[in-house]
Amino acid sequence: MSAANDSPEFQPRLTAGGPFSEAEREAVYRAIHSRRDVRSQFLPDPIADEVMLRILDAAHHAPSVGFMQPWNFLVVRDPDKKRRVAEIFGEANNEAAAMFPKDRQDAYRALKLEGITSSPVNICVTCDRTRGGPVVLGATHMPDMDLFSTVCAVQNLWLAARAEGLGVGWVSILKDAEVKAVLGIPEPIRLVAYLCMGKVDSFYATPELEQKGWRKRVPLRDLVFEDSWGAKGPANSEGP
Amino acid sequence: MSAANDSPEFQPRLTAGGPFSEAEREAVYRAIHSRRDVRSQFLPDPIADEVMLRILDAAHHAPSVGFMQPWNFLVVRDPDKKRRVAEIFGEANNEAAAMFPKDRQDAYRALKLEGITSSPVNICVTCDRTRGGPVVLGATHMPDMDLFSTVCAVQNLWLAARAEGLGVGWVSILKDAEVKAVLGIPEPIRLVAYLCMGKVDSFYATPELEQKGWRKRVPLRDLVFEDSWGAKGPANSEGP
Repeated sequence: MSAANDSPEFQPRLTAGGPFSEAEREAVYRAIHSRRDVRSQFLPDPIADEVMLRILDAAHHAPSVGFMQPWNFLVVRDPDKKRRVAEIFGEANNEAAAMFPKDRQDAYRALKLEGITSSPVNICVTCDRTRGGPVVLGATHMPDMDLFSTVCAVQNLWLAARAEGLGVGWVSILKDAEVKAVLGIPEPIRLVAYLCMGKVDSFYATPELEQKGWRKRVPLRDLVFEDSWGAKGPANSEGP
Repeated sequence: MSAANDSPEFQPRLTAGGPFSEAEREAVYRAIHSRRDVRSQFLPDPIADEVMLRILDAAHHAPSVGFMQPWNFLVVRDPDKKRRVAEIFGEANNEAAAMFPKDRQDAYRALKLEGITSSPVNICVTCDRTRGGPVVLGATHMPDMDLFSTVCAVQNLWLAARAEGLGVGWVSILKDAEVKAVLGIPEPIRLVAYLCMGKVDSFYATPELEQKGWRKRVPLRDLVFEDSWGAKGPANSEGP
């Protein structure tokens, strides 16, 4: 094996490969397929510390470029801070509505796009771009890899929360500099995701934006190419 | 409910909330905690079409900003294309090695950082930034949200593959314009991730870069703040 620790003594600690049991596999797919971007169904119930730790630990076990683990998780419960973030959303959302073509503005304004104050917990996920030092393994040619690693942590968090019965909504209609000021986040730190999380009684069976007629799901077969852009192959011939 | 379809007739299709069973939850956490960035352990066994479709469908069920689903999945099996991508890696990796401080260059060069030709399948995951039209719901104030959505798809793919017993490695030491040329990917499309995937006999029990002494895992408690940057709270007091 070619390794940094390339001495004959290096013995990796390994675990068995092989697929999960069918029941385990189905549980993973259940989390993936039933995860939703939640805006409206939050219950005010507090989240137990041990549940929160499991979810944050899942996020922390995301892949990261050069193992730099560039993320922080800022858990926001303070009602005053949430209210101020909700105000930042409100202003940005008004600006956003005005950007749409006239015929979609009413539809846009009718959508509820955040649960900042109605969810018991907000989590601001950030990326410290300096954490790995001046040169990060794997980020030399794709400089966004630290941000992308942080997004992988968000997706782990989201799936873990779903398994715990908690809904998560990602609020992106925000002015990040203003949110950072509310939370005291220093300048070099990048705000990647502002999440609302809480218990929900029910989840939308399919994406809320799909059910409300905003946009349709694209058939998977239209998105898969084989060996060359635009070329169809086995993965297009059947399936969802 | 405030909705685009805000008519009294709008009735969302919902599914029950609540946590997964303990066994299901453990399966989700098993996928999250045992997922690895695989470079060396690939077996040449082909991947069955139905397994590939389940994995790609999991990726396609990632969250996306404004439900824009900006991703494509270009499945690469052609040995010649894989060889050309491996050459692009080789050149970039030599450049990368030279960027590190002198005392880390040998350690860097000893690491195996890709399985492009040793894995049976490569998957190039791209982002079509134009797919949602000129204004995308949720991307008005955070323009990277389409790229971040695509990364969520990568993480779904990675976890689904782990449940199927397949290892995945993300190769980021590449010149994206050159890879796009090999695969015929048109100019406006952004290459987000180049993945190697295949069956493995075993996975590293902990991250390979950690086992090889490149970098240590940060304790979770050092990464979690409460209500303000730097402030400690319940999520810091215990746990992993």
